Amino acid sequence: MTDRAAAMQRRQLLIATGAALTAPALAQAQAGNPLPSWRDGPRRQALLDFVAAVTTEGSPDFVAPADRIATFDNDGTLWVEQPAYTQLFFVLDRIRALAPQHPEWSADALFRAAIEGDMAALGAGGTAGLVKLAGAALAGTTPEQFETIAAEWLATARDGRWHRPFTELVYQPMLEVLAFLRAKGFGTFIVTGGGVEFVRAFADRTYGVPRSQVVGSTFALKPGETDGRITLTREPQIDFVDDGPGKPIGIARHIGRRPIAAFGNSDGDYQMLRYTTEGPGRRLGMIVHHDDAEREYAYDRQSHIGHLEKALDEAPQRGWQVISMKDDWSRIFP
Amino acid sequence: MTDRAAAMQRRQLLIATGAALTAPALAQAQAGNPLPSWRDGPRRQALLDFVAAVTTEGSPDFVAPADRIATFDNDGTLWVEQPAYTQLFFVLDRIRALAPQHPEWSADALFRAAIEGDMAALGAGGTAGLVKLAGAALAGTTPEQFETIAAEWLATARDGRWHRPFTELVYQPMLEVLAFLRAKGFGTFIVTGGGVEFVRAFADRTYGVPRSQVVGSTFALKPGETDGRITLTREPQIDFVDDGPGKPIGIARHIGRRPIAAFGNSDGDYQMLRYTTEGPGRRLGMIVHHDDAEREYAYDRQSHIGHLEKALDEAPQRGWQVISMKDDWSRIFP
Repeated sequence: MTDRAAAMQRRQLLIATGAALTAPALAQAQAGNPLPSWRDGPRRQALLDFVAAVTTEGSPDFVAPADRIATFDNDGTLWVEQPAYTQLFFVLDRIRALAPQHPEWSADALFRAAIEGDMAALGAGGTAGLVKLAGAALAGTTPEQFETIAAEWLATARDGRWHRPFTELVYQPMLEVLAFLRAKGFGTFIVTGGGVEFVRAFADRTYGVPRSQVVGSTFALKPGETDGRITLTREPQIDFVDDGPGKPIGIARHIGRRPIAAFGNSDGDYQMLRYTTEGPGRRLGMIVHHDDAEREYAYDRQSHIGHLEKALDEAPQRGWQVISMKDDWSRIFP
Repeated sequence: MTDRAAAMQRRQLLIATGAALTAPALAQAQAGNPLPSWRDGPRRQALLDFVAAVTTEGSPDFVAPADRIATFDNDGTLWVEQPAYTQLFFVLDRIRALAPQHPEWSADALFRAAIEGDMAALGAGGTAGLVKLAGAALAGTTPEQFETIAAEWLATARDGRWHRPFTELVYQPMLEVLAFLRAKGFGTFIVTGGGVEFVRAFADRTYGVPRSQVVGSTFALKPGETDGRITLTREPQIDFVDDGPGKPIGIARHIGRRPIAAFGNSDGDYQMLRYTTEGPGRRLGMIVHHDDAEREYAYDRQSHIGHLEKALDEAPQRGWQVISMKDDWSRIFP
């Protein structure tokens, strides 16, 4: 496939995948009620009050548009992260697809677990194991190839519970927050522990966030030359982990400005929430609390994925708003 | 000084510094002649033709707005880089200001050369020496402190030839290109070998480029905690060099998309120009050639700063436009 054909196919896949969630959300945001999927209550009010305070000229809390930066975690904050990160399903499918070309993988317990979909064995390998798999699954791809592979997967893969594309398992109330903030002059950035290229493959279509406003973990890129053209290929080694203490660093590096609002759902967002709300002036920190087993999932302190404990315990003293999915959101998915 | 007072002072300094160059340039760009400081000729025409081709719906070369990415080198492409990089003057002034607190520096030949302004001795230290000085000069600062220090310096420092603030020694024709491209739906990014924080201190005001659209070299940031708040402090070690082969990597990392237009002036931009123009579809690569000793400077193959040789030699075969400052620009500075 030529580069141009690949780019066109990628675009078509992205359009097919994204299901145009952004435009309706934006239209709603600009109409009378910017947050129609939020129930009246202290969390919705806190959000509205914050935005009014920082965007009303003459307000003591007024913030110029260039300083209106809001950051959003992705997994568990903007889309579903249970029973496992979507990116993990992507990596496992890729490992399975490549396995015939890698007979040596069958001698490795971690890769065998991946090929057989043995989630317990994968869990035992911990984060290091998952990073190793993610590295092996996509090593050698150029950024353009990665995006084509990810877009193809997102267009065809379905989640096990709702049997819907993963890009439809995004939280409608958060799409409304994104659109509302942008309508109020904010720059909205995703700051994810996930791989930056994976999230970029759908962020524009799904969230209305352009690629350059996605900050994430990165694998090393190796410059080279193929057929007289410069190429960048992905190495198997991760070189920046944009999670926990890495999030403020990713923000400083990439955005160059401390956010005034941050949204997360786990202890992996604790430092981002602190870094945001410890700045001077009016600030907003919000935590999506998964307490709705019926419509989505209920988990916090006991969960390995999306573990939420420290941030939850400190939320009252730090003034962070804890969003109850069950009580605060009238609707979960678009 | 409180954080808030520092932020206000910073803002005032930025306003004082930037001299509001952007607004008039933008107004011109939107009027009949988008490039008033460009003389009629093949370079101006190439620019206009390229923009028309990629922005006219139905054109075979049409590019959707989200893909209209243009990248600009900074030193020598957007502002003056002779007789030495502006950031070097900044670092030297900072070294001199801090010298009384660092008696140990006087035992080091490199630091002595910096304190005494011995440019020949500094040159002998090469890039490694300059990076070491830049590391030492700003180590231990938070991103906010760095920006305040840089903005204060930019507001007061004057260049030796024109006795003007450095932020006024920007190229009016390039300001027009930036504004013109933005008016045509492009995202304009700076991709600089210089330190990202230094360029961010003036990019918004001076070029209309927001901080998050500046890609540059970075020093390691160390997370810590002071008085119960998360802090990031700059380490003396550089951890990413956004120059030469680093530029495509910085672009892939930060922007996540191959540019369709790139502007540079030296061999440090060679890989960025190739990475840009080797992509599929219509592309534009332009080189600012400093051939105007009277109004600015004349240098290329023999110069240590802004060395231009390989990119100049290969420009014809690669279809890159070489801009003659002398012939193509009717005006140099705003």
